[in-house]
Amino acid sequence: MNKFIVEALKEAKKSLKTDDVPVGAIIVYNGKIIGRGHNTREKQKMITRHAEINALEQACKKKKDWYLNGCEIYVTLEPCPMCMNAIAQARIKKVYYAAARDKIEHIKLPLKEQCCGKKESQELLHDFFKTKRGK
Amino acid sequence: MNKFIVEALKEAKKSLKTDDVPVGAIIVYNGKIIGRGHNTREKQKMITRHAEINALEQACKKKKDWYLNGCEIYVTLEPCPMCMNAIAQARIKKVYYAAARDKIEHIKLPLKEQCCGKKESQELLHDFFKTKRGK
Repeated sequence: MNKFIVEALKEAKKSLKTDDVPVGAIIVYNGKIIGRGHNTREKQKMITRHAEINALEQACKKKKDWYLNGCEIYVTLEPCPMCMNAIAQARIKKVYYAAARDKIEHIKLPLKEQCCGKKESQELLHDFFKTKRGK
Repeated sequence: MNKFIVEALKEAKKSLKTDDVPVGAIIVYNGKIIGRGHNTREKQKMITRHAEINALEQACKKKKDWYLNGCEIYVTLEPCPMCMNAIAQARIKKVYYAAARDKIEHIKLPLKEQCCGKKESQELLHDFFKTKRGK
Protein backbone atom coordinates (compact mmCIF):
# COMPACT_ATOMS: atom_id res chain seq x y z
CA MET A 1 0.00 0.00 0.00
CA ASN A 2 1.11 3.63 -0.52
CA LYS A 3 3.23 4.58 2.51
CA PHE A 4 1.45 7.90 3.03
CA ILE A 5 -1.96 6.23 3.17
CA VAL A 6 -0.49 3.78 5.69
CA GLU A 7 0.51 6.80 7.82
CA ALA A 8 -2.91 8.40 7.33
CA LEU A 9 -4.55 5.19 8.57
CA LYS A 10 -2.27 5.24 11.65
CA GLU A 11 -3.44 8.79 12.32
CA ALA A 12 -7.11 7.75 11.87
CA LYS A 13 -6.75 5.10 14.58
CA LYS A 14 -5.67 7.77 17.08
CA SER A 15 -9.15 9.34 16.80
CA LEU A 16 -10.71 6.18 18.24
CA LYS A 17 -9.10 6.82 21.64
CA THR A 18 -11.26 9.90 22.12
CA ASP A 19 -14.44 8.53 20.53
CA ASP A 20 -13.86 10.65 17.42
CA VAL A 21 -14.80 9.47 13.91
CA PRO A 22 -11.56 7.80 12.71
CA VAL A 23 -10.11 9.96 9.95
CA GLY A 24 -6.44 10.73 9.32
CA ALA A 25 -4.55 13.07 6.98
CA ILE A 26 -0.95 13.41 5.84
CA ILE A 27 0.61 16.35 3.94
CA VAL A 28 3.59 15.61 1.77
CA TYR A 29 6.14 18.05 0.34
CA ASN A 30 9.01 16.85 -1.85
CA GLY A 31 8.41 13.28 -0.73
CA LYS A 32 8.52 14.17 2.98
CA ILE A 33 5.72 14.36 5.52
CA ILE A 34 5.37 17.94 6.78
CA GLY A 35 1.92 17.68 8.37
CA ARG A 36 -0.12 14.97 10.01
CA GLY A 37 -3.47 15.12 11.73
CA HIS A 38 -6.41 13.13 12.96
CA ASN A 39 -9.97 14.08 13.74
CA THR A 40 -10.23 15.58 17.25
CA ARG A 41 -13.64 17.23 17.09
CA GLU A 42 -15.05 15.37 20.10
CA LYS A 43 -11.80 15.45 22.07
CA GLN A 44 -11.45 19.21 21.66
CA LYS A 45 -15.19 20.02 21.38
CA MET A 46 -14.22 22.21 18.46
CA ILE A 47 -15.99 22.41 15.11
CA THR A 48 -12.80 23.03 13.15
CA ARG A 49 -10.79 20.02 14.31
CA HIS A 50 -11.10 17.72 11.29
CA ALA A 51 -8.02 15.65 10.40
CA GLU A 52 -7.25 17.77 7.33
CA ILE A 53 -7.38 21.06 9.26
CA ASN A 54 -5.08 19.67 11.95
CA ALA A 55 -2.65 18.48 9.25
CA LEU A 56 -2.84 21.79 7.35
CA GLU A 57 -2.01 23.77 10.50
CA GLN A 58 0.99 21.56 11.24
CA ALA A 59 2.23 21.97 7.65
CA CYS A 60 1.79 25.77 7.77
CA LYS A 61 3.82 25.88 11.01
CA LYS A 62 6.52 23.78 9.38
CA LYS A 63 6.65 25.86 6.18
CA LYS A 64 6.08 29.15 8.07
CA ASP A 65 3.67 30.03 5.30
CA TRP A 66 -0.05 29.79 4.69
CA TYR A 67 0.52 28.72 1.12
CA LEU A 68 1.36 25.07 0.71
CA ASN A 69 2.23 25.11 -3.01
CA GLY A 70 3.76 21.90 -4.23
CA CYS A 71 2.20 19.83 -1.44
CA GLU A 72 -0.16 16.87 -1.72
CA ILE A 73 -2.59 15.59 0.87
CA TYR A 74 -3.47 11.96 1.64
CA VAL A 75 -6.72 11.43 3.54
CA THR A 76 -8.44 8.24 4.70
CA LEU A 77 -11.87 9.73 3.90
CA GLU A 78 -12.88 12.08 1.10
CA PRO A 79 -12.77 15.63 2.55
CA CYS A 80 -15.89 17.61 3.50
CA PRO A 81 -16.45 21.01 1.80
CA MET A 82 -14.94 22.95 4.73
CA CYS A 83 -11.70 21.00 4.40
CA MET A 84 -11.71 20.95 0.57
CA ASN A 85 -11.92 24.73 0.53
CA ALA A 86 -9.17 25.11 3.15
CA ILE A 87 -7.00 22.77 1.04
CA ALA A 88 -7.79 24.78 -2.10
CA GLN A 89 -7.00 28.11 -0.44
CA ALA A 90 -3.66 26.68 0.70
CA ARG A 91 -3.02 25.93 -3.00
CA ILE A 92 -2.60 22.20 -2.53
CA LYS A 93 -3.12 20.79 -5.99
CA LYS A 94 -3.87 17.12 -5.38
CA VAL A 95 -5.99 15.21 -2.88
CA TYR A 96 -5.67 11.44 -2.54
CA TYR A 97 -8.44 9.79 -0.53
CA ALA A 98 -9.02 6.17 0.46
CA ALA A 99 -12.74 5.85 1.26
CA ALA A 100 -15.37 7.89 -0.57
CA ARG A 101 -18.08 9.83 1.27
CA ASP A 102 -21.50 8.35 0.52
CA LYS A 103 -23.44 11.47 1.35
CA ILE A 104 -21.45 14.29 -0.16
CA GLU A 105 -22.66 17.03 2.10
CA HIS A 106 -26.27 17.04 2.88
CA ILE A 107 -25.48 19.82 5.31
CA LYS A 108 -27.54 22.84 4.33
CA LEU A 109 -25.72 26.14 4.23
CA PRO A 110 -27.18 28.72 6.65
CA LEU A 111 -29.27 31.66 5.53
CA LYS A 112 -27.31 34.78 4.64
CA GLU A 113 -28.61 38.31 4.94
CA GLN A 114 -26.84 41.52 4.06
CA CYS A 115 -27.12 43.99 6.93
CA CYS A 116 -25.89 47.47 7.86
CA GLY A 117 -22.19 48.42 7.95
CA LYS A 118 -21.62 47.83 4.24
CA LYS A 119 -20.07 51.25 3.66
CA GLU A 120 -17.78 51.07 6.71
CA SER A 121 -16.60 47.55 5.88
CA GLN A 122 -16.00 48.35 2.21
CA GLU A 123 -13.98 51.44 3.15
CA LEU A 124 -11.78 49.39 5.47
CA LEU A 125 -11.14 46.85 2.70
CA HIS A 126 -10.63 49.40 -0.06
CA ASP A 127 -8.16 51.45 2.01
CA PHE A 128 -6.26 48.28 2.89
CA PHE A 129 -5.89 47.11 -0.70
CA LYS A 130 -5.11 50.65 -1.92
CA THR A 131 -2.22 50.88 0.57
CA LYS A 132 -1.06 47.41 -0.49
CA ARG A 133 -1.00 48.39 -4.15
CA GLY A 134 0.85 51.59 -3.27
CA LYS A 135 3.71 49.64 -1.69
CA MET B 1 -25.99 50.71 13.41
CA ASN B 2 -26.52 47.18 14.75
CA LYS B 3 -24.33 46.83 17.84
CA PHE B 4 -22.93 43.45 16.78
CA ILE B 5 -21.79 44.80 13.41
CA VAL B 6 -20.15 47.67 15.28
CA GLU B 7 -18.22 45.08 17.30
CA ALA B 8 -17.37 43.11 14.14
CA LEU B 9 -15.96 46.30 12.59
CA LYS B 10 -13.85 46.86 15.73
CA GLU B 11 -12.49 43.33 15.29
CA ALA B 12 -11.76 43.95 11.60
CA LYS B 13 -9.61 46.96 12.46
CA LYS B 14 -7.37 44.74 14.62
CA SER B 15 -6.31 42.84 11.48
CA LEU B 16 -4.73 45.99 10.07
CA LYS B 17 -2.03 45.97 12.76
CA THR B 18 -0.55 42.80 11.29
CA ASP B 19 -1.12 43.64 7.62
CA ASP B 20 -4.02 41.20 7.44
CA VAL B 21 -7.11 41.81 5.27
CA PRO B 22 -9.48 43.60 7.69
CA VAL B 23 -12.36 41.25 8.44
CA GLY B 24 -14.11 40.74 11.77
CA ALA B 25 -16.72 38.31 13.11
CA ILE B 26 -18.97 38.16 16.16
CA ILE B 27 -20.99 35.15 17.38
CA VAL B 28 -24.11 35.87 19.38
CA TYR B 29 -26.08 33.52 21.62
CA ASN B 30 -29.20 34.68 23.46
CA GLY B 31 -28.28 38.28 22.76
CA LYS B 32 -24.77 37.91 24.21
CA ILE B 33 -21.41 37.80 22.41
CA ILE B 34 -19.79 34.39 22.97
CA GLY B 35 -17.18 34.55 20.22
CA ARG B 36 -15.19 37.24 18.49
CA GLY B 37 -12.45 37.00 15.92
CA HIS B 38 -10.49 38.86 13.29
CA ASN B 39 -8.46 37.69 10.33
CA THR B 40 -4.95 36.65 11.44
CA ARG B 41 -3.80 34.68 8.40
CA GLU B 42 -0.67 36.78 7.83
CA LYS B 43 0.07 37.25 11.51
CA GLN B 44 -0.08 33.52 12.18
CA LYS B 45 1.01 32.34 8.70
CA MET B 46 -1.86 29.90 8.95
CA ILE B 47 -4.39 29.09 6.24
CA THR B 48 -7.26 28.51 8.69
CA ARG B 49 -7.12 31.83 10.54
CA HIS B 50 -10.05 33.67 8.97
CA ALA B 51 -12.10 35.88 11.30
CA GLU B 52 -15.05 33.47 11.30
CA ILE B 53 -12.89 30.46 12.23
CA ASN B 54 -11.28 32.39 15.08
CA ALA B 55 -14.73 33.44 16.33
CA LEU B 56 -16.15 29.90 15.97
CA GLU B 57 -13.30 28.44 18.02
CA GLN B 58 -13.81 30.99 20.78
CA ALA B 59 -17.55 30.24 20.83
CA CYS B 60 -16.93 26.46 20.95
CA LYS B 61 -14.59 26.95 23.92
CA LYS B 62 -17.21 29.08 25.66
CA LYS B 63 -20.06 26.61 25.03
CA LYS B 64 -17.79 23.56 25.52
CA ASP B 65 -19.49 22.11 22.47
CA TRP B 66 -18.82 21.91 18.75
CA TYR B 67 -22.48 22.56 18.01
CA LEU B 68 -23.47 26.19 18.19
CA ASN B 69 -27.23 25.76 17.80
CA GLY B 70 -29.20 28.90 18.42
CA CYS B 71 -26.26 31.16 17.60
CA GLU B 72 -25.99 33.82 14.91
CA ILE B 73 -22.87 35.21 13.30
CA TYR B 74 -22.19 38.80 12.24
CA VAL B 75 -19.36 39.29 9.74
CA THR B 76 -17.99 42.41 8.09
CA LEU B 77 -17.46 40.53 4.80
CA GLU B 78 -19.53 37.75 3.25
CA PRO B 79 -17.88 34.43 4.29
CA CYS B 80 -15.76 32.31 1.94
CA PRO B 81 -16.85 28.68 1.31
CA MET B 82 -14.43 27.29 3.94
CA CYS B 83 -16.00 29.49 6.60
CA MET B 84 -19.60 29.02 5.35
CA ASN B 85 -19.20 25.27 5.64
CA ALA B 86 -17.64 25.50 9.11
CA ILE B 87 -20.57 27.73 10.15
CA ALA B 88 -23.06 25.25 8.65
CA GLN B 89 -21.47 22.26 10.37
CA ALA B 90 -21.64 24.13 13.69
CA ARG B 91 -25.41 24.45 13.01
CA ILE B 92 -25.44 28.23 13.05
CA LYS B 93 -28.66 29.14 11.28
CA LYS B 94 -28.15 32.76 10.29
CA VAL B 95 -25.27 34.78 8.86
CA TYR B 96 -25.41 38.57 8.76
CA TYR B 97 -22.77 40.21 6.61
CA ALA B 98 -21.97 43.86 5.90
CA ALA B 99 -19.99 43.93 2.62
CA ALA B 100 -20.63 41.42 -0.16
CA ARG B 101 -17.82 39.51 -1.85
CA ASP B 102 -17.52 40.52 -5.51
CA LYS B 103 -15.79 37.38 -6.64
CA ILE B 104 -17.65 34.61 -4.88
CA GLU B 105 -14.89 32.04 -4.96
CA HIS B 106 -12.90 31.86 -8.04
CA ILE B 107 -10.63 29.50 -6.16
CA LYS B 108 -10.58 26.21 -8.02
CA LEU B 109 -10.97 23.08 -5.92
CA PRO B 110 -7.97 20.74 -6.17
CA LEU B 111 -8.04 17.49 -8.11
CA LYS B 112 -9.25 14.46 -6.16
CA GLU B 113 -8.22 10.89 -6.83
CA GLN B 114 -9.32 7.77 -5.02
CA CYS B 115 -6.29 5.68 -4.04
CA CYS B 116 -5.51 2.48 -2.13
CA GLY B 117 -6.58 1.90 1.49
CA LYS B 118 -10.31 2.05 0.75
CA LYS B 119 -11.07 -1.27 2.48
CA GLU B 120 -8.99 -0.45 5.58
CA SER B 121 -10.49 3.00 5.96
CA GLN B 122 -14.06 1.80 5.43
CA GLU B 123 -13.57 -0.94 8.04
CA LEU B 124 -12.33 1.59 10.59
CA LEU B 125 -15.37 3.79 9.96
CA HIS B 126 -17.90 0.92 9.88
CA ASP B 127 -16.59 -0.58 13.13
CA PHE B 128 -16.69 2.84 14.78
CA PHE B 129 -20.31 3.54 13.81
CA LYS B 130 -21.37 -0.04 14.61
CA THR B 131 -19.98 0.33 18.15
CA LYS B 132 -21.70 3.72 18.44
CA ARG B 133 -25.06 2.28 17.44
CA GLY B 134 -24.55 -0.60 19.89
CA LYS B 135 -24.22 1.77 22.84
